[in-house]
Amino acid sequence: MSQLRISRVTVTPVAFEDPPLLNVVGVHQPYALRAIVELHTDSGLLGLGETYADEVHLARLEAVAAGLPGHDAYDLHGLRRHVTDVLGRETGGGGASFGGMLDVDSAVDTVYSPFEVACLDLQGHAAGVPVSDLLGGAVRETVPFSGYLFYKWAGHPGFADDAWGEALTPAQLVEQAHRMVDGWGFGSLKLKGGVFAPEQECEAIEALRSAFPDMPLRLDPNGAWTVETSLKVAARLAGVVEYLEDPTPGIPGMAAVAAGTDVPLATNMCVIAMEHLPPAIAQDAVQVVLSDHHLWGGLKKSALLGGITEVWGMGLSMHSNSHLGVSLAAMVHLAAATPNLTYACDTHYPWKTQDVITDGVLSFVDGSVAVPTTPGLGVTLDRDRLGELHELYLSCGVRRREDTVYMRSIQPDFEVNTARW
Amino acid sequence: MSQLRISRVTVTPVAFEDPPLLNVVGVHQPYALRAIVELHTDSGLLGLGETYADEVHLARLEAVAAGLPGHDAYDLHGLRRHVTDVLGRETGGGGASFGGMLDVDSAVDTVYSPFEVACLDLQGHAAGVPVSDLLGGAVRETVPFSGYLFYKWAGHPGFADDAWGEALTPAQLVEQAHRMVDGWGFGSLKLKGGVFAPEQECEAIEALRSAFPDMPLRLDPNGAWTVETSLKVAARLAGVVEYLEDPTPGIPGMAAVAAGTDVPLATNMCVIAMEHLPPAIAQDAVQVVLSDHHLWGGLKKSALLGGITEVWGMGLSMHSNSHLGVSLAAMVHLAAATPNLTYACDTHYPWKTQDVITDGVLSFVDGSVAVPTTPGLGVTLDRDRLGELHELYLSCGVRRREDTVYMRSIQPDFEVNTARW
Ligand SMILES: [Mg+2]
Ligand SMILES: [Mg+2]
Repeated sequence: MSQLRISRVTVTPVAFEDPPLLNVVGVHQPYALRAIVELHTDSGLLGLGETYADEVHLARLEAVAAGLPGHDAYDLHGLRRHVTDVLGRETGGGGASFGGMLDVDSAVDTVYSPFEVACLDLQGHAAGVPVSDLLGGAVRETVPFSGYLFYKWAGHPGFADDAWGEALTPAQLVEQAHRMVDGWGFGSLKLKGGVFAPEQECEAIEALRSAFPDMPLRLDPNGAWTVETSLKVAARLAGVVEYLEDPTPGIPGMAAVAAGTDVPLATNMCVIAMEHLPPAIAQDAVQVVLSDHHLWGGLKKSALLGGITEVWGMGLSMHSNSHLGVSLAAMVHLAAATPNLTYACDTHYPWKTQDVITDGVLSFVDGSVAVPTTPGLGVTLDRDRLGELHELYLSCGVRRREDTVYMRSIQPDFEVNTARW
Repeated sequence: MSQLRISRVTVTPVAFEDPPLLNVVGVHQPYALRAIVELHTDSGLLGLGETYADEVHLARLEAVAAGLPGHDAYDLHGLRRHVTDVLGRETGGGGASFGGMLDVDSAVDTVYSPFEVACLDLQGHAAGVPVSDLLGGAVRETVPFSGYLFYKWAGHPGFADDAWGEALTPAQLVEQAHRMVDGWGFGSLKLKGGVFAPEQECEAIEALRSAFPDMPLRLDPNGAWTVETSLKVAARLAGVVEYLEDPTPGIPGMAAVAAGTDVPLATNMCVIAMEHLPPAIAQDAVQVVLSDHHLWGGLKKSALLGGITEVWGMGLSMHSNSHLGVSLAAMVHLAAATPNLTYACDTHYPWKTQDVITDGVLSFVDGSVAVPTTPGLGVTLDRDRLGELHELYLSCGVRRREDTVYMRSIQPDFEVNTARW
């Protein structure tokens, strides 16, 4: 039997400054929340995980953590049973921090995920191998990411302007894109849409195409359009975008769009759990699935998603919420060990200025992050930084992601744009 | 980087005595062949794998083995690339020892499998954990197997009768079943059919039902029947068998049967690789898939199959060819770490009297084998036994499994029974 017994568990909520990034349901609040999970063993090893930190989710994490001491970090099936047992019937949504953009049917996958990642980090430390090795080995030494462009205000009302400035016009987005590409070296770009009328967002994509003639482009309006509008946009942007992400809500709607265009449709909204795959595949609703280990139940279940998309000949990409370095490390190991993850991954990483890990391991070169080759995830917690961001969590007043509530505090008549156009 | 570098590789073909077990394509030859793969590291660790040993397959194993020294045992994706590179275009069938019963489109999975298992054995030894831990942890401490009944002659022509005696009638099969149940404790039984007319085989199943009123029963004629006959048998055995295995050949035929009966249909013939899953699922052709890590490309790919059957709500069971203890250990670890493998697994193990491993680890209690808890696969090669069975391979004259050829040497007018009735 393994000696990788968990002796102590901590769950630390943290907050970090987040710019006013606009989307279909409103705008990012001034602070984004994350929870850092630490699994300690008696032998002195430490495994790390990172997840959402809405208060409902946090309470679930704490409840799971309380029963973990004594658990074997190799027993992932047992960990899942423990999570299921602890959650009992309280498995409804409300925990995953999507700001109202989507909801999960069950919290088991989202609560399980950071503990699984931390167990794999421990396994890697115990065996002296990087997490990518535990997933079958890295098939690429560096993982390419996509530059994530957002419509945004110059700053949060009541705060000083942030370093990025306003981006509400095509020209301002092109400027933002140049800054992303110059600073991080991205070789592909994604625009978060669903903010303005589709014609305006098409103009933005066309402006990006003119400014970056050879760069793969994506547009993600998070279901802001009807089927008819989606087909019009697809016709206009055919040959311009590498895929359209969630143009319209729901599997049947996506299937209707897919039937009328050759532009690949991607999703992180209508296929967000294993049970959505059979109907989506039966209806040929999506051509690219965005994995996300936070949402899909950890790295091994994300690898299963990778295998399924490979078997059915679907594309695979990777979704991101606002996140810190522990999540980035896990994303990089997973992406490195997933052969058919051939699209550049999404990341919000350039939008944040703070972190809980030490510098130097995860850096962007030519838009890619080198896969850590040291044991486990390969990142080290900076306890000063963790303490600072925990203090910020305690003082900032944000307890859950609420993009619409926050937006309405600024624009009282704001309505979410889902299927609006 | 990992220190689990492979320094030396051996592939040893072995033969062991096999009774004259009858099936749809003929009869088992007097000797069954297997190949034992050994991966050695400079640090003195040994990883084991077991696979088929038809001469075409053996040559492929040797070719792959020649390029393995220096390879990292954690780099499974790289191992697969290596196998693919070595096989080049020579990936047609002919290697998997199914005696003509089925053929694979590509040899990559079958050639990759024993090396992957041996790498996982090495990983387990290096980390000090059983292979089941590398697959997410054992969800059961013992793995139930099904007693595998065969029509058979009393002995091979020209050889002394074997210890089992003749089994050609329902009464003789019931006697065989009692011996299986008394000796190994099996809690379920499977009859290999496709040998006699379906009425006779139904009578055998009904005799088994009378003798064992509460025991789950399976019948596997390996595609000996037409769709019409399959439906008649299904109607007769509804409520008697837990599933019918491959009543008729091919996905469309199985789909036609499935549409006309509530008896679950299982297969290890029409769904034997990942690319068969999409059409089988689209046509609802099978309700239970039999995994087999030798055929499906190792333990991790078999776990992927487990995940897929779970997502699509299909049943999962496990197939067996004639095998030795290294394979049994791998089957037990895989089964233990596959939560939705709820059917008892098939095994030919009781039919053999020789082995290449030391006694004592894998024993049947109440029809189940306890999952080894020592590092790796948990079995130890007995070099004397390995040498003896290698000598037997060299002297026995069998170089490939050819059930039909061997049957015709005894009954010159024998025709295979596929879709005969
Ligand atoms: Mg999206
Ligand atoms: Mg079969």
